[in-house]
Amino acid sequence: MANAPETRSRPDADALRRTLEGDHAELRRQILELLSTRAFAYRPGLDRTAYRRQVMRWLRRLADEGMLNLGYPKETGGRGDVAGGIAAFETVAFHDLSLLVKLGVQVGLFGGAIAQLGTARHHRAYLRDAGSLALPGCFAMTETGHGSNVRELRTRARYEPQAGEFVIDTPDRDARKDYIGNAAVDGRAAVVFAQLEVAGEHHGVHAFFVPIRDARGRPRAGVRIEDCGEKLGLNGVDNGRLAFDGVRVPREALLDRFAQVDADGAYRSAIADPSRRFFTMLGALIQGRVCVAAAGVSATKSALTIAVRYGARRRQFGPPETEEVPVLDYLSHQRRLLIPLATTYALHFAVRDLAAAYAASQGRARMPVLARRRLEAQAAGIKAYATWHATSAIQACREACGGAGYLAANRLAALKADTDVFTTFEGDNTVLLQLVAKGLLTDYKEELSDMDLVETVRFVASRAFDSIAEAVPTGIVASVLAALPGRDGDETAMRDRRFQMEAMTFREEHLLHGLGRRLKRAMDRGADPFDAFNRAQDHVVATARAHVELRVLATFERAAARVRARATRETLGRLVDLYALSRIEADRGWFLEHGFLSPARSKAVVRTVNELCAEIRPEAELLVGAFGIPDALIGAPIGAR
Amino acid sequence: MANAPETRSRPDADALRRTLEGDHAELRRQILELLSTRAFAYRPGLDRTAYRRQVMRWLRRLADEGMLNLGYPKETGGRGDVAGGIAAFETVAFHDLSLLVKLGVQVGLFGGAIAQLGTARHHRAYLRDAGSLALPGCFAMTETGHGSNVRELRTRARYEPQAGEFVIDTPDRDARKDYIGNAAVDGRAAVVFAQLEVAGEHHGVHAFFVPIRDARGRPRAGVRIEDCGEKLGLNGVDNGRLAFDGVRVPREALLDRFAQVDADGAYRSAIADPSRRFFTMLGALIQGRVCVAAAGVSATKSALTIAVRYGARRRQFGPPETEEVPVLDYLSHQRRLLIPLATTYALHFAVRDLAAAYAASQGRARMPVLARRRLEAQAAGIKAYATWHATSAIQACREACGGAGYLAANRLAALKADTDVFTTFEGDNTVLLQLVAKGLLTDYKEELSDMDLVETVRFVASRAFDSIAEAVPTGIVASVLAALPGRDGDETAMRDRRFQMEAMTFREEHLLHGLGRRLKRAMDRGADPFDAFNRAQDHVVATARAHVELRVLATFERAAARVRARATRETLGRLVDLYALSRIEADRGWFLEHGFLSPARSKAVVRTVNELCAEIRPEAELLVGAFGIPDALIGAPIGAR
Repeated sequence: MANAPETRSRPDADALRRTLEGDHAELRRQILELLSTRAFAYRPGLDRTAYRRQVMRWLRRLADEGMLNLGYPKETGGRGDVAGGIAAFETVAFHDLSLLVKLGVQVGLFGGAIAQLGTARHHRAYLRDAGSLALPGCFAMTETGHGSNVRELRTRARYEPQAGEFVIDTPDRDARKDYIGNAAVDGRAAVVFAQLEVAGEHHGVHAFFVPIRDARGRPRAGVRIEDCGEKLGLNGVDNGRLAFDGVRVPREALLDRFAQVDADGAYRSAIADPSRRFFTMLGALIQGRVCVAAAGVSATKSALTIAVRYGARRRQFGPPETEEVPVLDYLSHQRRLLIPLATTYALHFAVRDLAAAYAASQGRARMPVLARRRLEAQAAGIKAYATWHATSAIQACREACGGAGYLAANRLAALKADTDVFTTFEGDNTVLLQLVAKGLLTDYKEELSDMDLVETVRFVASRAFDSIAEAVPTGIVASVLAALPGRDGDETAMRDRRFQMEAMTFREEHLLHGLGRRLKRAMDRGADPFDAFNRAQDHVVATARAHVELRVLATFERAAARVRARATRETLGRLVDLYALSRIEADRGWFLEHGFLSPARSKAVVRTVNELCAEIRPEAELLVGAFGIPDALIGAPIGAR
Repeated sequence: MANAPETRSRPDADALRRTLEGDHAELRRQILELLSTRAFAYRPGLDRTAYRRQVMRWLRRLADEGMLNLGYPKETGGRGDVAGGIAAFETVAFHDLSLLVKLGVQVGLFGGAIAQLGTARHHRAYLRDAGSLALPGCFAMTETGHGSNVRELRTRARYEPQAGEFVIDTPDRDARKDYIGNAAVDGRAAVVFAQLEVAGEHHGVHAFFVPIRDARGRPRAGVRIEDCGEKLGLNGVDNGRLAFDGVRVPREALLDRFAQVDADGAYRSAIADPSRRFFTMLGALIQGRVCVAAAGVSATKSALTIAVRYGARRRQFGPPETEEVPVLDYLSHQRRLLIPLATTYALHFAVRDLAAAYAASQGRARMPVLARRRLEAQAAGIKAYATWHATSAIQACREACGGAGYLAANRLAALKADTDVFTTFEGDNTVLLQLVAKGLLTDYKEELSDMDLVETVRFVASRAFDSIAEAVPTGIVASVLAALPGRDGDETAMRDRRFQMEAMTFREEHLLHGLGRRLKRAMDRGADPFDAFNRAQDHVVATARAHVELRVLATFERAAARVRARATRETLGRLVDLYALSRIEADRGWFLEHGFLSPARSKAVVRTVNELCAEIRPEAELLVGAFGIPDALIGAPIGAR
């Protein structure tokens, strides 16, 4: 427990690094080595056009090294290694994030949509070229008027049986495909999501392979392309807008894994319900969320490496007649950086766990619906949590570095700007957390997977709450609290892992039960379901967040406990404590309101967080060093080793 | 109290705008009109060199219109209107923030240092040219190695009596003047802060007028100038680094309001104590903090105008078979935007109050020390609070606008990047809040004004706590709570202004008393004062923040109560409620820990915040409209009226 820093044995830096490195160690090292070569040296100060070109050159180089098709099937030239593909993405995220996002658009979104929504014919025709970058492509889902509610997209695809072709149309400005990566300059084709109409019947959103430029890079007839121009960040990615005026594609252009149109113009799908079909399609695309979560964590590691090293070196103020004190010795500075550091360690393992679960799911021929829905919710929750963490942690790093942190040369500017959109792309975080809550409320039951919000609320209200029991587990909590060592408010009790887990578990269950009851009550009073859900939206979001935090803690706890070397295990254990207690501290209002914390224990949580910061401080540089990011990729003079 | 939105009378939009406009209405309108002309149209996409030139052209135009010397004495061509100068700054902050910061460097920092630290001779010689921009200048205080702890600056100024000159030297890289605005390109002179040495004796930091470039713009002999290059934001400002190699300036170059060196090389100062002299000099420079606070609020107003208008227009999801719902109708969206909106209204009045107090202080020949120290603390506290608010509120606005918010065309990118440094320049916010706490701990007593941290802690520990009484005011609080209408947890009680004020007052006093006792206990146990203060740093910062929040609430409350028109007063009243209760909500863990809130009342706070959001929603567009920012300055298609 609370060993004084002096008496502790330090973990071996290399052992700690290897513990984090985990799977695909050789691949990760190979990529870091490649990215540390001169060809990949950062080139600050390029204008937008030059920057985009540079990013495309880097991407070609990665393609040439076989880094773009790791996850694709072997028969299309890939390695069939989905987990490797994610590991590569996570590692490239230590480099320029425009390169990363361009890679993600090409490999994950464009190629990924073909792989997941298409069939063997499409795989054979396009995946080899997607993975070699011979065919740069776009993922054209979002429209100007529809980002989150993509079921209401308004691009149209009408089947003409005479010609055996689909005709793609953009009815108006709001229906333009917007913010589309690879569209403004490089994309030759796009997977376009559109409302399918066959013989006057509407079948909902489907995906089509649509060439958008010819071999010389000119827009195809009927395709209008605009440049989105300068963005807050990621200016090495050529985002654009696409509009279609009667663009014709053959019948085979429909990515037909979940629905087919035969030559006679008959529509067929194994999933009869249009809503369920739509969510099945969306569910097949969760890899993007897994990858964005991983990238958010990597970028946060870069920022923390810079800020912690600068904080350990930068001296300011101090007792009279002595050398000034490193700013990382100040409690405020420790709280600003070491709490995010502990959270980043926690998320490191959470993201690895998610990636492994996702990769395993891809190996299976058919996944049970319950497991699939759980995985979707896990990806949504971790994506939201990790990207909000990235935004706030990188902000804290910038501020902790003062004026030096504001200079582009020290790279925090780019990390901040480039990751900012992570919170709203690949699913707006608030919307994603509602998806998580919906899963919890419906127990991920198959028959409920395609319910919309209104149906979900009606369902919850109709339940007898057999799974969401009325009884709040006060009995269990009370006994766990009673069993803790030490008096009320004693700091040693705070480090009891049972206390931390019980707190997080109690919160999740209590929030979920309360939400169920609240929705039921509202419906019993005759409320409109949409309105009832909206009035509880803060409760919904809090429930989802509590669920994610519990999962993250549990995963971190297990990972730390598995480590053999004692010093490393203890070091990770302190980070688990800091993660758990800082989360409880941040929400201690709730824990006090619901009788889980007494005022004395609540104050003990705060004190213990401060103590943990002081204990972890001597290891801070070692902890960021274990992220293993080469100086060439850190790219910040103040963040060099 | 809780009127249903439908039954409320709406305030007159124009009346609300005039209420906010306040003093110098004509000047503000004149500036907005000027900034709306074609000459001031935003020119996106300029490279750094062109952007800097554009900003300099804009600044010249403002100088030509007499907008740079409003606050300077009439005898130097100015208008002697300090409040007008701040009003102008606050208004220009609706335009490009590089222009604003360049203006601030020239008028407030460079000219301001001459005005505040120099004497009539310097005013006559330089202020006219500073105000006309004939003499672009820098404020060279910060060094690479010293930002916050400027008492330890290492640039040297040695007096040579034979020559009657000071010799300025930069001993090493860490002593370079860094991040200096106007230095890389335009500055002709700089006010340089350096350690003064006269006849082998050291007198601490003093300020000198030092020409750095000749009339043709070439660096003067002995002056080395570097460009800081690309920054996270504010790229229209030419920040640079200055180093001096035996640069000679005449004896008159010393800005000698607080200390003089006579021709024979005798040093004299009316303030004998070097530490007090130093803090008196720094205290004279608080206008920068007043202005940064005001600018932070203006920039937040721009961002909120954009996000609220987009939120009212953008529709996504909704009940079945109906038009989609404006995203601002969702509770989460309301919480994200309307709580910052209420806080921005609160800060509007807090900043106006601060500016008025500052302007009044400049009118007085001699200000009592107590009042001066209070004003310094007020400026430090409001600056920290307002700029952190700007950072988080603008971030919320960006996220609330999703992909559209990420496009540079919608200006949130610039607002976010440009204001980011506000939290760390003109005093790092965490350091400033410690200054506030120090004032509270020492009751702003004159003899304590020059104490450093260690002395402050020793002083606090030595006190009998006659002013910081041991008794926690539970008696008063209990009776106030008992006197509130309604049962425990009743929402109507939450809107009782006495409840809100009492909560904030209780918190400030309790934190302050507790901090005093805590420091005393630590010292009694023989702790090192520096260490004792550091271990309580989170408590110190919380105390200062609680103090600032109470002041902001009190000012907002008074301002709202003063309004004659009933509908306007009621609308402002709801914003006061939302501000107060959202602050109590955010810190409800503390209020529960300290017995001020019962769990039932704490939950009622949360519910009332949600209710207030719903009530304010129908007025949201009117509320941002009242900021009165012309569309030309908003500069965002999604934020147009």
